Amino acid sequence: MKNPTAAMIVIGDEILSGRTRDSNMHYLAKELVKVGLSLKEVRIISDDQEEIILSTNELRKKFNYVFTSGGIGPTHDDITADSIAKAFKVKIGVRSDAKKILSKYYQQNGIDLNSSRIRMARIPEGAELIENPISGAPGFKIENVFVMAGVPTIFQSMVDFTLANMRHRAPIKSKSIILKLPEGEIAEELKKIALKNPDVNFGSYPFFRDGILGTDIVIRGNDLRVIEDLAQKVEQTFKVKVENEDE
Amino acid sequence: MKNPTAAMIVIGDEILSGRTRDSNMHYLAKELVKVGLSLKEVRIISDDQEEIILSTNELRKKFNYVFTSGGIGPTHDDITADSIAKAFKVKIGVRSDAKKILSKYYQQNGIDLNSSRIRMARIPEGAELIENPISGAPGFKIENVFVMAGVPTIFQSMVDFTLANMRHRAPIKSKSIILKLPEGEIAEELKKIALKNPDVNFGSYPFFRDGILGTDIVIRGNDLRVIEDLAQKVEQTFKVKVENEDE
Repeated sequence: MKNPTAAMIVIGDEILSGRTRDSNMHYLAKELVKVGLSLKEVRIISDDQEEIILSTNELRKKFNYVFTSGGIGPTHDDITADSIAKAFKVKIGVRSDAKKILSKYYQQNGIDLNSSRIRMARIPEGAELIENPISGAPGFKIENVFVMAGVPTIFQSMVDFTLANMRHRAPIKSKSIILKLPEGEIAEELKKIALKNPDVNFGSYPFFRDGILGTDIVIRGNDLRVIEDLAQKVEQTFKVKVENEDE
Repeated sequence: MKNPTAAMIVIGDEILSGRTRDSNMHYLAKELVKVGLSLKEVRIISDDQEEIILSTNELRKKFNYVFTSGGIGPTHDDITADSIAKAFKVKIGVRSDAKKILSKYYQQNGIDLNSSRIRMARIPEGAELIENPISGAPGFKIENVFVMAGVPTIFQSMVDFTLANMRHRAPIKSKSIILKLPEGEIAEELKKIALKNPDVNFGSYPFFRDGILGTDIVIRGNDLRVIEDLAQKVEQTFKVKVENEDE
């Protein structure tokens, strides 16, 4: 049984220009592993309607789920909701349930619900809302696409809400082994072990820390017992102790 | 005159699984701005031959330059060089100039040049080498695609080498203004200014720090004088001082 697949679209010129370092991708990646979804591709694109439509339509057909971040605020460069509606060829307008959430939130916080803010109640037809406990304005889910905010705290709360509401399969388990040996020393033997175990993924990640070239080996799969046995095998092969255990 | 465009492909399961937080994209993004290249898209994909070929061929046709990171080490999951050769439909084999660099580096460092390490001298036909002062094994450039290592220190040194050797145009200039006003308060007026100045890019980035909802406005373009005038205009419109000046 294969894990369902996911892709992410990060929408934002500020990431591409190097002004902001994205943290949403890393957060989502870690959370998806916990619920057994396999993140297969991430695209970081600019605030451009055509690019949003293109990526959304490519990725929603190729993967089971698509998560987007960014571009659902009140300003002129927030074009994600409209672009997603175009991608699905559905209408978009201010929806009463979303407007009600905004009204209530702004009233409680003594903020004026002006015309820019009402834009954030524009939701494509047929979408379900995603709660935003931090600043009111909701995200939304349309078919297999989850549209969420770019501000990290809001994005994270939307991811938590979304994943808690999704049925999921067996979490992906992993075990990692830190070797103080460069990749070149271990490649031959590791390849042999990997070829004998096609159901399990063997990652090999070189590092260069404190003047030492080393390698992290990560073994991933659904069956923790199998992974533990293979970790022992790697340990014996390279005569090291398994130093680090992931969940 | 438009700035030349660039895309990046980050190759690595370790990023998608959330195990490692990528830092290469952010480094490249900042360096490209300095030399006047406009990063338009980033794809993070898995260590999968078909995906590497697909992304490489799509992006090298769509943008002026493509930069890749990851997958050029000595282990079984390092398949980038072979995949790039397939994308360009050219042969690949151990090249004598690359092998010579490896031999020299390993000899100087008392390391054995075994068969796994010799894999790192496999270079697609017609490619030029990219120097690696840190661990010897070179990257390469084929047509408009620059293939570089995933280890951040090595990646960074390869980027520096590559960009120093590229002719470039006018750097993109920017000025940012921090407003302690939420996006919803400024959206209307900002839109008016943006519509009047189509040659300049106005970014609006909400933040939520220390309980305050605020907005960073970033004005980007080639002409610093135009940008400074517009920053003053924004300042006057929202009655704030320009607090932060980028390069």
